[in-house]
Amino acid sequence: MAFKPGVDPLPRRVYPRQALSAEASLTIYLHKTDLPDGLDLGPIVAIDTETMGLDPRRDRLCVVQLSAGDGHAHLVQIARGQTRAPNLERLLTNPDVLKLFHFGRFDIAAMKNAFGVTTAPVWCTKIASRLIRTFTDRHGLKYLLQEMVGVDVSKQQQTSDWGAAELTEAQKDYAASDVLYLHALKAALELRLQREGRMELAQRCFDFLPTRAELDLMGWDEPNDIFHH
Amino acid sequence: MAFKPGVDPLPRRVYPRQALSAEASLTIYLHKTDLPDGLDLGPIVAIDTETMGLDPRRDRLCVVQLSAGDGHAHLVQIARGQTRAPNLERLLTNPDVLKLFHFGRFDIAAMKNAFGVTTAPVWCTKIASRLIRTFTDRHGLKYLLQEMVGVDVSKQQQTSDWGAAELTEAQKDYAASDVLYLHALKAALELRLQREGRMELAQRCFDFLPTRAELDLMGWDEPNDIFHH
Amino acid sequence: MAFKPGVDPLPRRVYPRQALSAEASLTIYLHKTDLPDGLDLGPIVAIDTETMGLDPRRDRLCVVQLSAGDGHAHLVQIARGQTRAPNLERLLTNPDVLKLFHFGRFDIAAMKNAFGVTTAPVWCTKIASRLIRTFTDRHGLKYLLQEMVGVDVSKQQQTSDWGAAELTEAQKDYAASDVLYLHALKAALELRLQREGRMELAQRCFDFLPTRAELDLMGWDEPNDIFHH
Amino acid sequence: MAFKPGVDPLPRRVYPRQALSAEASLTIYLHKTDLPDGLDLGPIVAIDTETMGLDPRRDRLCVVQLSAGDGHAHLVQIARGQTRAPNLERLLTNPDVLKLFHFGRFDIAAMKNAFGVTTAPVWCTKIASRLIRTFTDRHGLKYLLQEMVGVDVSKQQQTSDWGAAELTEAQKDYAASDVLYLHALKAALELRLQREGRMELAQRCFDFLPTRAELDLMGWDEPNDIFHH
Amino acid sequence: MAFKPGVDPLPRRVYPRQALSAEASLTIYLHKTDLPDGLDLGPIVAIDTETMGLDPRRDRLCVVQLSAGDGHAHLVQIARGQTRAPNLERLLTNPDVLKLFHFGRFDIAAMKNAFGVTTAPVWCTKIASRLIRTFTDRHGLKYLLQEMVGVDVSKQQQTSDWGAAELTEAQKDYAASDVLYLHALKAALELRLQREGRMELAQRCFDFLPTRAELDLMGWDEPNDIFHH
Amino acid sequence: MAFKPGVDPLPRRVYPRQALSAEASLTIYLHKTDLPDGLDLGPIVAIDTETMGLDPRRDRLCVVQLSAGDGHAHLVQIARGQTRAPNLERLLTNPDVLKLFHFGRFDIAAMKNAFGVTTAPVWCTKIASRLIRTFTDRHGLKYLLQEMVGVDVSKQQQTSDWGAAELTEAQKDYAASDVLYLHALKAALELRLQREGRMELAQRCFDFLPTRAELDLMGWDEPNDIFHH
Amino acid sequence: MAFKPGVDPLPRRVYPRQALSAEASLTIYLHKTDLPDGLDLGPIVAIDTETMGLDPRRDRLCVVQLSAGDGHAHLVQIARGQTRAPNLERLLTNPDVLKLFHFGRFDIAAMKNAFGVTTAPVWCTKIASRLIRTFTDRHGLKYLLQEMVGVDVSKQQQTSDWGAAELTEAQKDYAASDVLYLHALKAALELRLQREGRMELAQRCFDFLPTRAELDLMGWDEPNDIFHH
Amino acid sequence: MAFKPGVDPLPRRVYPRQALSAEASLTIYLHKTDLPDGLDLGPIVAIDTETMGLDPRRDRLCVVQLSAGDGHAHLVQIARGQTRAPNLERLLTNPDVLKLFHFGRFDIAAMKNAFGVTTAPVWCTKIASRLIRTFTDRHGLKYLLQEMVGVDVSKQQQTSDWGAAELTEAQKDYAASDVLYLHALKAALELRLQREGRMELAQRCFDFLPTRAELDLMGWDEPNDIFHH
Repeated sequence: MAFKPGVDPLPRRVYPRQALSAEASLTIYLHKTDLPDGLDLGPIVAIDTETMGLDPRRDRLCVVQLSAGDGHAHLVQIARGQTRAPNLERLLTNPDVLKLFHFGRFDIAAMKNAFGVTTAPVWCTKIASRLIRTFTDRHGLKYLLQEMVGVDVSKQQQTSDWGAAELTEAQKDYAASDVLYLHALKAALELRLQREGRMELAQRCFDFLPTRAELDLMGWDEPNDIFHH
Repeated sequence: MAFKPGVDPLPRRVYPRQALSAEASLTIYLHKTDLPDGLDLGPIVAIDTETMGLDPRRDRLCVVQLSAGDGHAHLVQIARGQTRAPNLERLLTNPDVLKLFHFGRFDIAAMKNAFGVTTAPVWCTKIASRLIRTFTDRHGLKYLLQEMVGVDVSKQQQTSDWGAAELTEAQKDYAASDVLYLHALKAALELRLQREGRMELAQRCFDFLPTRAELDLMGWDEPNDIFHH
Repeated sequence: MAFKPGVDPLPRRVYPRQALSAEASLTIYLHKTDLPDGLDLGPIVAIDTETMGLDPRRDRLCVVQLSAGDGHAHLVQIARGQTRAPNLERLLTNPDVLKLFHFGRFDIAAMKNAFGVTTAPVWCTKIASRLIRTFTDRHGLKYLLQEMVGVDVSKQQQTSDWGAAELTEAQKDYAASDVLYLHALKAALELRLQREGRMELAQRCFDFLPTRAELDLMGWDEPNDIFHH
Repeated sequence: MAFKPGVDPLPRRVYPRQALSAEASLTIYLHKTDLPDGLDLGPIVAIDTETMGLDPRRDRLCVVQLSAGDGHAHLVQIARGQTRAPNLERLLTNPDVLKLFHFGRFDIAAMKNAFGVTTAPVWCTKIASRLIRTFTDRHGLKYLLQEMVGVDVSKQQQTSDWGAAELTEAQKDYAASDVLYLHALKAALELRLQREGRMELAQRCFDFLPTRAELDLMGWDEPNDIFHH
Repeated sequence: MAFKPGVDPLPRRVYPRQALSAEASLTIYLHKTDLPDGLDLGPIVAIDTETMGLDPRRDRLCVVQLSAGDGHAHLVQIARGQTRAPNLERLLTNPDVLKLFHFGRFDIAAMKNAFGVTTAPVWCTKIASRLIRTFTDRHGLKYLLQEMVGVDVSKQQQTSDWGAAELTEAQKDYAASDVLYLHALKAALELRLQREGRMELAQRCFDFLPTRAELDLMGWDEPNDIFHH
Repeated sequence: MAFKPGVDPLPRRVYPRQALSAEASLTIYLHKTDLPDGLDLGPIVAIDTETMGLDPRRDRLCVVQLSAGDGHAHLVQIARGQTRAPNLERLLTNPDVLKLFHFGRFDIAAMKNAFGVTTAPVWCTKIASRLIRTFTDRHGLKYLLQEMVGVDVSKQQQTSDWGAAELTEAQKDYAASDVLYLHALKAALELRLQREGRMELAQRCFDFLPTRAELDLMGWDEPNDIFHH
Repeated sequence: MAFKPGVDPLPRRVYPRQALSAEASLTIYLHKTDLPDGLDLGPIVAIDTETMGLDPRRDRLCVVQLSAGDGHAHLVQIARGQTRAPNLERLLTNPDVLKLFHFGRFDIAAMKNAFGVTTAPVWCTKIASRLIRTFTDRHGLKYLLQEMVGVDVSKQQQTSDWGAAELTEAQKDYAASDVLYLHALKAALELRLQREGRMELAQRCFDFLPTRAELDLMGWDEPNDIFHH
Repeated sequence: MAFKPGVDPLPRRVYPRQALSAEASLTIYLHKTDLPDGLDLGPIVAIDTETMGLDPRRDRLCVVQLSAGDGHAHLVQIARGQTRAPNLERLLTNPDVLKLFHFGRFDIAAMKNAFGVTTAPVWCTKIASRLIRTFTDRHGLKYLLQEMVGVDVSKQQQTSDWGAAELTEAQKDYAASDVLYLHALKAALELRLQREGRMELAQRCFDFLPTRAELDLMGWDEPNDIFHH
């Protein structure tokens, strides 16, 4: 696929969905319970997760989506009661691979809850957007991809039954779409962080993010934030 | 002074005010605009600040209190319009000196706002209390000192005119009392953090605290927390 | 009618309105004040009610709709001041007939208020949806029927004058539509409850539902819930 | 000890603390990790628990207090990380022993979380008070014991460090006081439930209480109550 | 005009706007400062008002609209600073003429504030709707006219500049539409009040309405209601 | 007894409790289920009620207290399930006897709920206080009696068990104290209503009060007030 | 009287009530409807008002208190229905006399409402306190007098019946105490305003205060502030 | 350009966008860092600003738009870190030039924050609208221009990246549109202010506006308004 974020990160209206399909055939790989052995997704891996809901005490992890930023997506279906996924865990804890999320706070907690591992190092497009797009409250992925990458993604399957044994095509497409464009989005956000001199501040926030997720799991989320007065 | 937190950290009712005065004469040193040259306060320095109010845009830093944990206190009065305090700044940024606060989030921001320096490394008794005293909402310094160190301190001067040219005796006593017992409190809290296995989690929170204070100064405090969904 | 929930409970887009009309002629039977003698609606009866409003002290019960799950509906119009309906009461209290509701909490209370009888045993599609569709807040009947049974029902007549002496055709259609598909919805929800191992928990909630409705009538609803701290 | 709740359940000002001490020497038995083998606490056992806080995900169970209603108390200290207590579990699940709580919703959940067992059958003095003392919002144990049993108990140790290896005498006294008078309170409340004809309604609420606690643990507490509209 | 509310008060879809225009030419009479001498509007006069806003201390009365229920409307423009309107005042206080409003609480207060007179006797279609349409929260005039009289009226001019020296045609049409159909609406509401036995209760509410408006003017509106606990 | 409200209604500090006891021996008459035949309480009767709580659907009427303003009190105990009290009902509906309450809204509704009768005519010291003591939010009976009549009454038994078969002496004293001084309070309030010209407005509010209570019983209390916009 | 605010504005504990009485006999002059002709209260007049309540539409102005700062007070009783007070109005509008208030926003509005005049120029000790005592939320007069002037004043008569024909001695004392110390308070606040460089900002706020009060009267108070976004 | 506000200030539907383009070619002049030397924008200059967000501590001023009311617009791009703009500052502080804003409170504060200068004298169309359009809550510029000037302006670019080095054409058009029609809007609002006699009140609000903005910058905005009780 011809997509090269390092060369031309933000040419507006360059990666519309149909264009991507035309240039390179997007493949969605579906894996049961873990990533296959030996799969190398490169130094920066975009990750998203789908769960049965927002309460980690009750709502199990169902799907982990990953992309190397090459236009393809890997979906790992997690089984009910599953507590280990060695290849995935190795990736999450690999200090040489940057894990790239949008609102990673939730995904990192969900995977910590499922497998017990702490994901690091990480980069989060939502935090970056909050740090640099100070003129707006809209930091949703759909909105960011529209404005900064020129891609429209659907959110219709967001609250579907991710615990089903067989995912529908619509679910697979939706799951993949959440990781396919994160590399391009990161590139666009970095330009602005650098322009306004907030790259180093962003990095310190990313460094704390796994701890923030762990505190959430332990009940120190709002309004019981550990830093509160 | 005979006070040895390492030996006997939590004998209730052991350090009442009068006892301290009897054993060792508490001295409050008053300095104008900066710490004196050559003052060595040891590897762990308890610090507190007094300001004209809670809005750093408007309310100037008035007093910085420090203690080596030896029962004595140093008060530095900051002048109106003052933007530098070289000796104090050197201490705040010295990587070999741990700065010990109660709710350091505010003090670190106030000194960053006044002098532009980032205080590090730090330890915060309020965060430690939140992490280990999960059975209560009461994490105020007065309450903690009563329960864990057996000392009663007054809070009557808390909202007095700290911008006055001459501090009253009551103000000096109050200012000193906020740093005199922090070393003992830290020792008591560490015992419990270790018992419940939360020492490492606490450390990661302390590491983030200077960034948390910097985000506050930039407007990313509640309800605009940078980590919000 | 060819509809067999046991055989094929969730083929999406199989039971659209027009299809039902084509396959089997839906009949809406209208009864005054009580069910006719000798009517057997089988072991599982879907029930819904219409009232003059939400305050049982003031707003009388107007219509009780029932269906055996065979595509037909029976509407019983309750007269102003009526306090008994022997055939209906016998059905509600029959321990061998499962009464199937969507948000039965309200209907059970309305009929307890009108006739003094406690409906049991019961099954509630709203509770089942809350227990299994943890990824969403949308548990309305219209939404559930769309997603899980593939049927669109109108809600336009929901707040019409159910106390009128003569119901309009639109009112009758609406009233019937609330009970016609509950058997199919129950079947679809049971599959998921079983998959996630929450069938037994659901049963315990259903067992308590008549008591929950009775507590409501006595004023122990939110925020005065009898179980509150 | 001469205390016979069956004979004289509510003679106001009959069981003041000192009187109890005079009549019969109250003994507090302290057990580590489990009840001793062979201890028979009779057909109705009053139970209370102390934890590290209110969040079962994070705050471990520390102490379980029990009393046969004979004026003595048994305290079981639960160790950090402990997940089984066979004798205690046997008691909690014994269908022939009624477990008597004040606000059992919390205690049942805490023990379910610690040991995985469902406590049943149960009786709760808080629910009984809500059902019969409709003229007030005050249903706290301290208040109920004052008004209905004539006993004053202190609540000062309520938020103390129950996770300590050695409990203080004050903690032991406080822990015991929460179970010593529950039999007498139950007797007084039953008289009023019978007078107002609400005994059977109370029983249905008690039957649901273990399920209510289990729903809490799974996240269906307010404002996500499973019965909500 | 063929419109006879006494004969056939609620034939649904009988009075659409165009039908009215076709059958009888609606005339809007515009009067400056007062009704003309000698105008007889019959025993029941529909009245509505337009003001500069909702604060009677500040926002002056601009227009009073009246209709005899014969399909015509009279608009009285009130001048800035005007404090008397003898003919209008005579009508408002005439004990033999029923003044018919929709949410008369506001209009009665506005005219009391402008002229000092208490309007009586009165009838209010909003109160009647609240008393009988207990199944809904929608008691706006537009909604009531649609559902019960079969007429669609526009609300676009509701917040226009009623203090202008010359009203636009759109303003006149809007102002007239608020009084033209109140007689028909009253007839429809009365049928239901009678059916549910609430006519006498409604009458007692209407009797109090002028006092309710006077209390509002004096500051005893919510949340300072004179009847509050 | 020498107490003559018509002669000297507001001599501050004239009717302290002990003075009353000295002058005239206060008698509390206790009646079961109804007033005795032939008892004449004069043209103005002070009335208060005690119930099992604030929800008329659930909480039965227990006691009705009455006083002729002569320093004596009559207590009528209402039995569980009782629905008639002919002598009391005759008094409540007697158009020639003014019923005097403090916050009559509740008492009138409680007696309407118990016996089905509408109390009229009425006078309410709480409404009078709201109309004339505009400088304060404190309109409780205890406060009014202190400030305007110079009498201290206890409120300790307010939330006691009024459904008990035998009332305690403390309960009887408390119940009586709520009606003994209402005549004197009315006299004091009338002076001020007259001074500020609000007597006629007060009368119109009193006239509506029975309807206000009836609307409450039917569910049109706040926030569903029948007069709301 | 020896009180000279210019000479010694803030000697703590210098003007206690008893001291004032000793040094100079405080005289309270009571005037009916207006100030006497020819009374000269000097260039700075402290003013406070008492009303029937907080709603100017309803609650009339009862008393205006004034003091020249010489330890004496003048009380002007305003009659019901009174709309003019020429001498007082002349003082309020005299451009050469500074009117000194504590929370003048209310008093200026009350007098504008009563007499139609705009008070100017003005000085307000509450605004000054907000501008300079940024470390606290406590800006009440009682608190300010305690902290900055060393005087304790009672607030017990604050909500008494100021519309009475004859004021009690307690009312007169209270009314006087609100104006006696405002000159001293102003002097103390001015020192701090000057120290922090906010004198000119305070002046601009004082200049706007009469308009702020006029906007309040017209309904543009919170939450409808004219400056809102 | 033929646009002459003095001659014909409010001919509805006279200045539609296309008409303006047809009559006179709108020119948008782009200036870097300051206005050019010698540019005379006349006695009344419409001004608007664009920033990186709403928090002046963090979000820098990006663009200042100005118009003489002649149909042309001048855009001044402010560089990151820029603290002076001499020509612009001279205009802002020129006592002979009226600065015309819509919600000037924000713009005046943003420019005070950037350059340290206080803008005066000023006129604000939002305040004028609040003072005269009392019948509505809608005071947004888009709405006002539609209703009172007959112009539709787009708000799509409102939250775009105004800190970009190169503004897009859409950004320039949007920025210009906010100042092009303010002269016409002012003329229309003045007519109504005069009609209702509120011109002088408006002027006093405008006079205070620069101080209101300065108080905002210092933290005395809602809910800490300096005028609060």
